[in-house]
Amino acid sequence: MSQSSQDVTVLEELSANKSFGGVYKRFRHYSRVLDCPMIFGIFLPEQAAHPRPKLLWWLSGLSCTDENFMQKAGAHRLASQLGLAIVCPDTSPRGLDLPGEHDAYDFGSGAGFYLNATEAPWRDHYRMYDYVLEELPQVVRANFELAERESIFGHSMGGHGALVLALRNPGRYASVSAFSPIVNPTAVPWGEKAFSGYLGEDRESWKQYDACELILAGSGKSDRLALFVDQGEADGFLENQLKTERLEQACAVSGHPLWLRRQPGYDHSYFFIASFVDDHLRYHAERLD
Amino acid sequence: MSQSSQDVTVLEELSANKSFGGVYKRFRHYSRVLDCPMIFGIFLPEQAAHPRPKLLWWLSGLSCTDENFMQKAGAHRLASQLGLAIVCPDTSPRGLDLPGEHDAYDFGSGAGFYLNATEAPWRDHYRMYDYVLEELPQVVRANFELAERESIFGHSMGGHGALVLALRNPGRYASVSAFSPIVNPTAVPWGEKAFSGYLGEDRESWKQYDACELILAGSGKSDRLALFVDQGEADGFLENQLKTERLEQACAVSGHPLWLRRQPGYDHSYFFIASFVDDHLRYHAERLD
Repeated sequence: MSQSSQDVTVLEELSANKSFGGVYKRFRHYSRVLDCPMIFGIFLPEQAAHPRPKLLWWLSGLSCTDENFMQKAGAHRLASQLGLAIVCPDTSPRGLDLPGEHDAYDFGSGAGFYLNATEAPWRDHYRMYDYVLEELPQVVRANFELAERESIFGHSMGGHGALVLALRNPGRYASVSAFSPIVNPTAVPWGEKAFSGYLGEDRESWKQYDACELILAGSGKSDRLALFVDQGEADGFLENQLKTERLEQACAVSGHPLWLRRQPGYDHSYFFIASFVDDHLRYHAERLD
Repeated sequence: MSQSSQDVTVLEELSANKSFGGVYKRFRHYSRVLDCPMIFGIFLPEQAAHPRPKLLWWLSGLSCTDENFMQKAGAHRLASQLGLAIVCPDTSPRGLDLPGEHDAYDFGSGAGFYLNATEAPWRDHYRMYDYVLEELPQVVRANFELAERESIFGHSMGGHGALVLALRNPGRYASVSAFSPIVNPTAVPWGEKAFSGYLGEDRESWKQYDACELILAGSGKSDRLALFVDQGEADGFLENQLKTERLEQACAVSGHPLWLRRQPGYDHSYFFIASFVDDHLRYHAERLD
């Protein structure tokens, strides 16, 4: 049997750790969309107290795997109380060896940018947009009893992913939030490098993966889902890569609701995320009720 | 100027991350006791709210560095509220290249066992007992304004270290606690390997670094400082390396106060530590008042 004919919903359990009365598990499955084996993590609150948890997606940033958020964000404590299941996908296809794939932290492995690549050789595997939007939710729902609605949040490249997925799919997510998101990737070095490589030189095609461009073009107009964003003011990437002010401008121009908090003294690290993750968990839990 | 003549209290700041209103910093200094440069981490609660924080030491387990607890335990949130400064030393001397030092996770680098080695070549550097008890406290107090009393806790090898340091130094610590401690290292594989290498074959000399032996010999009798221990029942090391029941027996025989909690389903990981660290922080903060 070829790998691509495998049932993508079949899971191999890699580990299970009891955490705050719930359980954190890691699974491997074969992704047909990405054409490679993938690992994801899920935190499940205590079954007895929460037989049908709310579903919250976390998308991580550059160089992360499915593990960083689970280990460093300190989110299990409140997720357990609120009855939130949190799923963390990986940040790119894995186990491949495409030319140059592992040469840089900001392109290739660990840097999938939550888009569907159109350029060779990336287009055969780098389809994280479809993976996160469609395939992985099917896998998760086939294996776990979860409430119907879902929300999404993420950090940096993953904040970009969360915003883009929510803006392009009105009604799909009950709420969206982001820490330190790359809000305008078509016009910053990280995004220009990644989009050139994955999408080619036609910059028009880039705009479908740019939160600011999507807002300016009226995406998400049908439900005007509010964007909740936390941004550290001491973030070393703020000026050249994140440019949060452009999201403010785009939302102001288009009348898109934005709840932006600038947090003095905080940087781009998981210590920033941990410091405010409880606010995000409460925000999503309320909207998933 | 030779390195050993350097002032050990001079710190080189490696990083600073704002976290829960406080700050987490890492520093390098030259340790005269260990005769090598060492890194430690410190979490300081918000200065304005806590101008003179309480001092709590954390000792990590095998293969850890100064970073694991700070990144994974989720302790900053409550430490910030309680006004606790937490200091995390590294788990062994670093930057050396002694014969066989880096060959195993349970001996040499990352595995100092908080003792003073007597065997060559370890005895010239592996003196983590003196480093944690004497030198590093001097370094920390020379650089930070902290309350006078201090407490100590740790995990696995670091739980062993915390118990041994407290039992051998009555009056020194206001309180002691441990997650999954190695309570009887002289009679389990991890301890037998480490103590043979660092202390030689005279098993009498090993007993000064064994919590059970110290309690049976009457150490800590002068203040009978209670031992607060959390142990996961699904810990894969419980049966062969931790043997918590021996601590219960020793405390029962000697009348030493022990508050032992067996936590069903929890393993040896940081998810276990994170799940119960708040209880330990509150326990120490109350006794440091």
